[in-house]
Amino acid sequence: MSVTKAYAAQTATSKMAPLNIQRRTLRPDDVAIDILYCGVCHSDIHQAENDWGNSIYPVVPGHEIIGRVTSIGPNVTQYKVGDIVGVGCMVDSCCSCSSCHAGLEQYCENGMVGTYNGKDYYDGTLTSGGYSEHIVVREAFVLSIPDTLDIKAAAPLLCAGITTYSPLKHYGVKAGDKVGILGMGGLGHMGVKYAKALGAEVTVFTRSQSKVAEAKLLGADHVIVSTDADQMAAATLTFNFLLDTIPVAHDFNPYLNCLKVDGAHIIVGLVTGIDPPIWGASLITKRRILAGSMIGGIAETQEMLNFSAEHGINCEVEMLDIQNINVAYERMKKGDVKYRFVIDMNSLKKS
Amino acid sequence: MSVTKAYAAQTATSKMAPLNIQRRTLRPDDVAIDILYCGVCHSDIHQAENDWGNSIYPVVPGHEIIGRVTSIGPNVTQYKVGDIVGVGCMVDSCCSCSSCHAGLEQYCENGMVGTYNGKDYYDGTLTSGGYSEHIVVREAFVLSIPDTLDIKAAAPLLCAGITTYSPLKHYGVKAGDKVGILGMGGLGHMGVKYAKALGAEVTVFTRSQSKVAEAKLLGADHVIVSTDADQMAAATLTFNFLLDTIPVAHDFNPYLNCLKVDGAHIIVGLVTGIDPPIWGASLITKRRILAGSMIGGIAETQEMLNFSAEHGINCEVEMLDIQNINVAYERMKKGDVKYRFVIDMNSLKKS
Repeated sequence: MSVTKAYAAQTATSKMAPLNIQRRTLRPDDVAIDILYCGVCHSDIHQAENDWGNSIYPVVPGHEIIGRVTSIGPNVTQYKVGDIVGVGCMVDSCCSCSSCHAGLEQYCENGMVGTYNGKDYYDGTLTSGGYSEHIVVREAFVLSIPDTLDIKAAAPLLCAGITTYSPLKHYGVKAGDKVGILGMGGLGHMGVKYAKALGAEVTVFTRSQSKVAEAKLLGADHVIVSTDADQMAAATLTFNFLLDTIPVAHDFNPYLNCLKVDGAHIIVGLVTGIDPPIWGASLITKRRILAGSMIGGIAETQEMLNFSAEHGINCEVEMLDIQNINVAYERMKKGDVKYRFVIDMNSLKKS
Repeated sequence: MSVTKAYAAQTATSKMAPLNIQRRTLRPDDVAIDILYCGVCHSDIHQAENDWGNSIYPVVPGHEIIGRVTSIGPNVTQYKVGDIVGVGCMVDSCCSCSSCHAGLEQYCENGMVGTYNGKDYYDGTLTSGGYSEHIVVREAFVLSIPDTLDIKAAAPLLCAGITTYSPLKHYGVKAGDKVGILGMGGLGHMGVKYAKALGAEVTVFTRSQSKVAEAKLLGADHVIVSTDADQMAAATLTFNFLLDTIPVAHDFNPYLNCLKVDGAHIIVGLVTGIDPPIWGASLITKRRILAGSMIGGIAETQEMLNFSAEHGINCEVEMLDIQNINVAYERMKKGDVKYRFVIDMNSLKKS
């Protein structure tokens, strides 16, 4: 066991504050990592504040982790000391169910182990995430970071990246498809980049006229202001695929109407609150699909990192010292970040 | 033009009553058909009573038609006088949009023409359905009825059959899949038969303990009484596919929970009222699909008829004289029919 500096929420209403935590002694298949950068995901806030009702305190958030390997267990074969590696939303799964065998560890039938607020399969200890100096993770859940990625900006790929890449790939989005990205925050702006890289014609749906220029700067071909009834009506029956990253409860029906026959509307945001009812007729009369998607499997996450390197895709980030995390949370609640905060974990040494 | 006896609703609140209607003179690609049998679909009631708000009176319902060819236009090549043929829910579509080119005439981008309460593409006249002696239909929308099918019982295949067959095929249901059929009326009982014929392990979900034995008689391997919380809990995460034929507004969530990872819940019933909201998390955390499906294309309808003949599949029917149609509607509203009424159109001669 080793003591590691971290930042944690001690209760649902407390601010994030310094806390010393323990990291386990390496098991034979473990990799020990000094954390260099950690992205700040909206889920971090939800869990720190127990919005989903399942938080166990102290919560040390952070599941967009980039770091350097400092030691390895005797059975580790893929990584060596000094390698730059990543850790995403999972640090373990049962590895024996049909989902795990299919490379879908995120849907593990026995439950994947979250990078934080999860329970270790072996000793039952609470997992603690990337707002810390150091982490120990089973090799099978460690990702290799391609040399050509800017490692600061790559941190959010481990959650925001894979969450948007996976459904685009799973539904076979391809050149010429008309793809809509709903919402343009941390997830949405990555969706724009991946959909463009896959050759799609990309439209951003946003509530705000003020985001039109930004969306185009990010590569969107078109922008629809979703509060403009005329623009929405003109979009009826024109999309093959909608990636819905909207982080709050919202009405799916106006978007479903924008799908062509056999179009798919994929939701990736776990919202608080309840979305209004859907109109069954909208699904039936055009054979439309409403479905969900959650991050991606480990092999697909590696594929996404390699794809990102190959296509020069990174997250747009604003760097942060850990001491400013509470301010960052308040700004994120107002949607005031372009597009992801990343903590420079070197700052933790000052705490 | 020719005058034809029919039964029609004259207003949303009137009973079905005799009415003489006109059938058009044959166009070059038309087939004229004397109607022998016509199934009674719940949509007939919805449209007769204007539940969907789009009825144009008089409404002559009926889109599960079996008849004999009495004459053909000069360009007709597939049918000859004396052939036993079928007509389903559509009598025309634009035949030039991408849906029509894909054999998905039911999703025609310019609007398919319903067998009744539709508007003819050429002369704008209101279409009238199968509760009549005679009908004239464009050859491309006429189906061939295999010799080995009992033609009385085959009538409902044209709607109830294709509505359940199409989504099972579209989603690739195959041997060994665990399929749930929600509801066991005219559609549900056909779903059981097709899913079994495709090799699936089939479970009927019903609210009523009294239907358990019936469901097994129809071929279901298992029955879950959906009002029994223990049975529903035991079904969590066990199904690949759910075919939802429930004809009234209902909560999808308990059923979605029964789906495995990547499972699909397909709704085929246009209900009156609004289904409660779905839980987005249920879709996201297991990559589940909620989707709709509406009848099937013409080529697929022919495939379904051939498949039915090959597998000895027919609808379970109760024969009816047209004079009893109002009684039949009242019984259907109470779910009192096993499983589909079929009108012996010979009875119309007595009106």
